[in-house]
Amino acid sequence: MIDVPEPDAERLADGIAEIARFHDSSLPGWSREVFSEPYRASRDWVRGRMAEAGLEVTADAAGNIVGRLPGTHGGPALVTGSHTDTVRQGGRFDGIVGVLAGIEVAQRLRETGVRLAHDLVVADFLGEEANEFGISCMGSRSVAGVLLPEHLDRVDGSGQRLGDAMAAFGLDPQAALRQAWDPADVHAYVELHVEQGPLLERSGTSIGVVTAIAGIDRMLVHFAGLAGHAGTTPMPDRHDALVSAAAAVLAVERVGCGAPVHGVATTGHIESSPGSMGVITDRARLWAEIRSVDGDWLRGARRRIVDEITAETRARGVDIDVDWISDQDPVPTSPLLQDVVAEAAGGLGLSWTAVPSGAGHDAAHLARLGPMGMIFVPSAGGRSHCPEELTATEDIARGAHVLAATLMSLDRRDGVRHS
Amino acid sequence: MIDVPEPDAERLADGIAEIARFHDSSLPGWSREVFSEPYRASRDWVRGRMAEAGLEVTADAAGNIVGRLPGTHGGPALVTGSHTDTVRQGGRFDGIVGVLAGIEVAQRLRETGVRLAHDLVVADFLGEEANEFGISCMGSRSVAGVLLPEHLDRVDGSGQRLGDAMAAFGLDPQAALRQAWDPADVHAYVELHVEQGPLLERSGTSIGVVTAIAGIDRMLVHFAGLAGHAGTTPMPDRHDALVSAAAAVLAVERVGCGAPVHGVATTGHIESSPGSMGVITDRARLWAEIRSVDGDWLRGARRRIVDEITAETRARGVDIDVDWISDQDPVPTSPLLQDVVAEAAGGLGLSWTAVPSGAGHDAAHLARLGPMGMIFVPSAGGRSHCPEELTATEDIARGAHVLAATLMSLDRRDGVRHS
Repeated sequence: MIDVPEPDAERLADGIAEIARFHDSSLPGWSREVFSEPYRASRDWVRGRMAEAGLEVTADAAGNIVGRLPGTHGGPALVTGSHTDTVRQGGRFDGIVGVLAGIEVAQRLRETGVRLAHDLVVADFLGEEANEFGISCMGSRSVAGVLLPEHLDRVDGSGQRLGDAMAAFGLDPQAALRQAWDPADVHAYVELHVEQGPLLERSGTSIGVVTAIAGIDRMLVHFAGLAGHAGTTPMPDRHDALVSAAAAVLAVERVGCGAPVHGVATTGHIESSPGSMGVITDRARLWAEIRSVDGDWLRGARRRIVDEITAETRARGVDIDVDWISDQDPVPTSPLLQDVVAEAAGGLGLSWTAVPSGAGHDAAHLARLGPMGMIFVPSAGGRSHCPEELTATEDIARGAHVLAATLMSLDRRDGVRHS
Repeated sequence: MIDVPEPDAERLADGIAEIARFHDSSLPGWSREVFSEPYRASRDWVRGRMAEAGLEVTADAAGNIVGRLPGTHGGPALVTGSHTDTVRQGGRFDGIVGVLAGIEVAQRLRETGVRLAHDLVVADFLGEEANEFGISCMGSRSVAGVLLPEHLDRVDGSGQRLGDAMAAFGLDPQAALRQAWDPADVHAYVELHVEQGPLLERSGTSIGVVTAIAGIDRMLVHFAGLAGHAGTTPMPDRHDALVSAAAAVLAVERVGCGAPVHGVATTGHIESSPGSMGVITDRARLWAEIRSVDGDWLRGARRRIVDEITAETRARGVDIDVDWISDQDPVPTSPLLQDVVAEAAGGLGLSWTAVPSGAGHDAAHLARLGPMGMIFVPSAGGRSHCPEELTATEDIARGAHVLAATLMSLDRRDGVRHS
């Protein structure tokens, strides 16, 4: 086996600390949401970090930052990357680890004089996290050709269109619809990411070889009951929208608990009106989602949730209206890339195990362009999307090392696409 | 029986339509909340209406508007009245009927030349409905001597103190703490009100003789769970504050449904954070209340609700903190006044029945000053605190007629206080 350059763990940790400085300090944790000022400021930092590593840096119409390390033969590129935006009150590792490790791997290849045959592309995709426009992975959708005109017309809570928000951020939304990469230019895509769940830590394993990225079905349920005086309306006469929404939250939980491993169901939010003491709630809205790597279970769970909520609300004389506001099928990773990642980990003497990804990733969209694989590293306590999110520097360095070995192994292979 | 002047039903209906014009037109229904601009404008209309009826009109430090029709002998006054503020998105009858019927009765006594021995006082008490400061019946608390300095320090959602809101409305909050009426000046208090529940309409009865005003216990429950990624956190590992709050909503409903007649339990509102798709809720707050005319049941229900919520949250590893933010014991009406009201209704050939009041009323505070009674008229569909709130004009006129007969009967009695 060819010697795989070891990443500089300290430089990686420094980069993570440096980009963490760009956050909304009025909120707990590390908030660097897409289109925010801290995110805008951090984009220059990412460009600078890529340039410092010796990459040719460009930014595209969708705000993706792309660094390229030319190979000796050119042709389709080896692509890695992730994102550096965060959820509100999020952490310092989700996405960031994949971008900085990609840069670190490229820098170490240069520093150690290892030349790949293929170009190596490191991408920081714009706005991966779900946002107020109800669309995640904006940058990777754009390069995969699945950012659509109707996405640009979505509005956030303040009524602003996504297209206008992109333009205000200095992007070119119309061009972002027409810049899909040619699959012929992608040799393979590999993304390093923190697991965001507890499986690796719990089993004492260093590396997760991802088998599939979970599909997500998201719903918005409207409840219409009847307002009334909370003191004078007898319990049997009530049509309380908030009680029906509460029963729906428990129905969502029940369906999730009945899932096979890695099927989950979560209510993210409830709104109700009038929201006053002394008045029975007449209107409520509930946002919930189900996720699984098993498409059959997802389809069944959709039906079960609607059936259970319908039964609960009917019993209370409350009307409901269910909108499935988005769905995304599970995306399996390439079996060949699973093998390559596992071999790379084994070759470096690291323990590995096959794991599903409960979270969505840019990789799910990149899979349209070529063979796709993902490498996970452990998350302390399985925590993510919260300030306490933590992956140890040595775990990140191990992941970056496996990423380097994976990319070098893929570089030596032809016909990855058709295997 | 002395002839009781019949109210002018058309004038009553006109008054109700006229004051309804003062409402926040940016909201559905009739919103005339305390301290709002529509409420401010309506106060002048009430003064004018009282003056037109021939009453001597004054306003006190707490913003109560008081009209007086002097009696032939003076001494302790017969007091009637209610309030003209509304809940947000409320109706046109709750409170308003009692004020306008009181004025109508006084005007008809004058017009028909019937002189009472006692002064007749018609009061429009400030801010009876629960508000953002968490205090209802501000005006009647003031005259009953139970508006307290700590009430003035309560803050609304914007951080404004109640005392400052009163001052901004042109009132004198410090003087409002020191203007309690002398019980020796109150012969009796009778309030006409819409039932706000379905019992009278359902039984086809014209007049409700109120037996007691329900006590209210209000709680604020804080839930502290653990945020996490909604895609990657296995169901058994979750500490979801929103699911625990939902279970609490159902526990509140269960306790209410287990109540004897007229025990009710209602969750008014839930708030949760971070409130994002894709993130498990770590914090939630829930506002709920229980009401009953039965103090023993109330005490038991408090314990049961806390026990059930504690069990549900403990099972999910979520911490709770329960604040009982206010409580008000049930207030029985005077047995003598119950008899007088029932005799008055019977004397006018109207059907009547004894009913509890699930809602709180100014009368609960006036009961500190003298014998207290209440007269209910039917609410269509039992609806209240909503735009659809409706009581037919003929039902209001019947109630006003019974109010007149009740006041005339009380006028002829001495020693009501000690009976």
